[in-house]
Amino acid sequence: MAEQLPPKYGKCFVCSMVLNMLLILCLFVGHTNWKPSWSMRAAMEAEAVASESCSGHGRAYLDGLLVDGKPVCECNTCFGGPDCSQFSPDCPADVNSGNPLFLEPFWMQNAASGALLVSGWHRMSYSYDDDSNISEELEKHIRKLHSIVGNAVTEGRFIVFGTGSTQLLNAAVHSLALTNSSSRAGVVTTKPFYPAYKSQTDFFRSVDYNFVGDTSQFKNATDGNANIIEFVTSPNNPDGLLKKAVLEGPHAKAINDHAYFWPHYTAIPAPADEDVMIFTLSKLTGHAGSRFGWAVIKDEAVYQAMSAYTSQISFGVSHDTQLVALKLLKFVAQGKGEIFDFGFETMRNRWEILGKTLSVSSRFSVQEIEPQYCSVYQKVRDPSPAYAWFKCEREEDEDCYAVLRAAGIISRQGTLFGADSRYVRLSLIKTQDDFDLLIRKLTILVSEEDGAKIM
Amino acid sequence: MAEQLPPKYGKCFVCSMVLNMLLILCLFVGHTNWKPSWSMRAAMEAEAVASESCSGHGRAYLDGLLVDGKPVCECNTCFGGPDCSQFSPDCPADVNSGNPLFLEPFWMQNAASGALLVSGWHRMSYSYDDDSNISEELEKHIRKLHSIVGNAVTEGRFIVFGTGSTQLLNAAVHSLALTNSSSRAGVVTTKPFYPAYKSQTDFFRSVDYNFVGDTSQFKNATDGNANIIEFVTSPNNPDGLLKKAVLEGPHAKAINDHAYFWPHYTAIPAPADEDVMIFTLSKLTGHAGSRFGWAVIKDEAVYQAMSAYTSQISFGVSHDTQLVALKLLKFVAQGKGEIFDFGFETMRNRWEILGKTLSVSSRFSVQEIEPQYCSVYQKVRDPSPAYAWFKCEREEDEDCYAVLRAAGIISRQGTLFGADSRYVRLSLIKTQDDFDLLIRKLTILVSEEDGAKIM
Repeated sequence: MAEQLPPKYGKCFVCSMVLNMLLILCLFVGHTNWKPSWSMRAAMEAEAVASESCSGHGRAYLDGLLVDGKPVCECNTCFGGPDCSQFSPDCPADVNSGNPLFLEPFWMQNAASGALLVSGWHRMSYSYDDDSNISEELEKHIRKLHSIVGNAVTEGRFIVFGTGSTQLLNAAVHSLALTNSSSRAGVVTTKPFYPAYKSQTDFFRSVDYNFVGDTSQFKNATDGNANIIEFVTSPNNPDGLLKKAVLEGPHAKAINDHAYFWPHYTAIPAPADEDVMIFTLSKLTGHAGSRFGWAVIKDEAVYQAMSAYTSQISFGVSHDTQLVALKLLKFVAQGKGEIFDFGFETMRNRWEILGKTLSVSSRFSVQEIEPQYCSVYQKVRDPSPAYAWFKCEREEDEDCYAVLRAAGIISRQGTLFGADSRYVRLSLIKTQDDFDLLIRKLTILVSEEDGAKIM
Repeated sequence: MAEQLPPKYGKCFVCSMVLNMLLILCLFVGHTNWKPSWSMRAAMEAEAVASESCSGHGRAYLDGLLVDGKPVCECNTCFGGPDCSQFSPDCPADVNSGNPLFLEPFWMQNAASGALLVSGWHRMSYSYDDDSNISEELEKHIRKLHSIVGNAVTEGRFIVFGTGSTQLLNAAVHSLALTNSSSRAGVVTTKPFYPAYKSQTDFFRSVDYNFVGDTSQFKNATDGNANIIEFVTSPNNPDGLLKKAVLEGPHAKAINDHAYFWPHYTAIPAPADEDVMIFTLSKLTGHAGSRFGWAVIKDEAVYQAMSAYTSQISFGVSHDTQLVALKLLKFVAQGKGEIFDFGFETMRNRWEILGKTLSVSSRFSVQEIEPQYCSVYQKVRDPSPAYAWFKCEREEDEDCYAVLRAAGIISRQGTLFGADSRYVRLSLIKTQDDFDLLIRKLTILVSEEDGAKIM
């Protein structure tokens, strides 16, 4: 039959041949690019879950519940319904916790860079190849990152990993108490302070240390034999101020908690260079749930004691978590500061809106921090702290938490930070939805002020 | 030009058309099956690393060192060279640690089932959707697994997660000391015992508890007001015996460490049903490096105290680790006991070989455990404990560790377990290479015996 085809089909034949070649090209060039084998199912599962948009007001997780085989959306506060599209306007703005979800969109936008495939046989041993509990590559990248950002000196320093900086806080107290002197150490800090310093130190009821109060009570006690461990948070939680240790003397040791010492939140005037410095992934990349922190330590005896602590309490940090941290920090260090730009822009923007909202109020105020020269951006910049340290100025508003709660805002009481009940902390690092709702509630509250300033 | 083609090309045209159709089919049917988008790079990286065979005597890891862009093989003990093919015959057999690497081949053989893709925005919050630190799905699967295996009653019990069972040991001591009575609690255990019970309890130097010694000293002290916390390991580490609490009385509480209460190591006579039971991923799936354990608790006050402990020390367990544990346990629970078959077969095989090797010796012996009825396999089975509790029988071999060390075997001293120096622990759960080398060294040692039994 074919031989009877008229010659005019020749054109079709050429077209067909060209098509063949194109298709072959497609198959063997376009489509020879790699396809997963054993990792396929895991990749499919992850992308299927990620494809749930949840209306932009939630997300589905790989370990979330399934309904009819479909991953369930977990909605932002005040959003509900199967796809998180239903907003409850009467629901209070919850700005209590320090959940750093403002960085979630960054990782969604950089999905390929944050993705990690963990094999079923990843580092099953208790230790790494060098018999330590610490990934050498991760330690290298942490040092590299500090050097790029210029927020901490790590050359010639020891590094210990912890299950979040939380674990390292107590590890540091325990170690400094043992290496400092033989008498029981008193743990102090300056008001307003991060509540865990007190609650954690109290909780463990150690023979070697106990929480004894505010630094101001001990200023004159350190020239003698007083064995004091001072927690210093810089920038401070809750008020965002850069801080230095107050106490001096041969038996005064400081633990410098630098959780927020990153360009998202503060100008970096110079690299920190204290004896014991603590950092955490939580406020750097936003991965609070990963529970990963590290300490940078000058003194070898303190380093040995802190390593022993993390070994005794948990044989070090999960290898899976260390792998996740490496993936994230590699990208942060390789990138041209994208996450810092994203973080800073988001926070600055939120501070601008908050400032504008409160500018008409004489009833409420927030902390003021002077602009400072930032070595990262090489210019003077405004601070953009993680929290607003919010004050009720009116005499009758003694319980500021209650004032805000009545207006549909859940804050964190100032008294928890050792401060007056006129103060509360508002978290500005949660989701955009949380922030928007806070501003909506605050705007109403401020507009109801008698004698609100006219803009 | 085309129109001048002779009609005989018609056949070619048809062929070309058929080819067109086949290629299109290939492209749009064969190749429409799913391809990863943002997860592609992660999948490629993981499969590239996994494709390093390391001669079967090592493996490359995603967070290992790179040399010339190629992941470096991390070799089993006594193997070296770029591909781990070089064996050092004079290198000692190291059977000191309890690294459960005998299960590594299982996960390599089940690569697709163990693979997990973690997105860059996986559960960044401190807490899960229900404000807890615990993945609901993971808890569900843990309960399911205990019910399938029949090794623990979990109905109506509370579950707490820890950074390895290690963290939960101290969490339990701390909590029982607080909830038990107001006097300082004494922590005890029965020799030979897992050294961490003493070292960890000593390390934290608490006001509320301290390690006071062997249960035998306290048998008669518990009818009064003695406030005692007894560690019970069943099967016991190091000797593999099933154990029950020794002490009784209103102020005697037990922490039942069931790390090895899985079919790999022991017959399961009946589900355990004690007040505080501790389990770990390490000895179940072999993932010691993931640092994940759980406690099953009867009493709500103890549960609350242990939850508070894990919150204070680290805000719970890494969400990445919980995701890894879920992936692994889902497979273990879904499968038809493959991992138990694999684990038991491997261990039984090792015990057979060890038994044969030692059968000609009168100088050395190992523990004997009676066969027991196993509810999992529904038959009487021999035990296959994780460790050989090895004894030097000759009067002059007082330091059994030194005897073995001289023969090229690194064991763990019996004295570390509170036992006589005539005893050492040999780990049988490390890699096949470690086991093979142990047998090689033991065979030589036994063959040198004066008057070795003739087989």
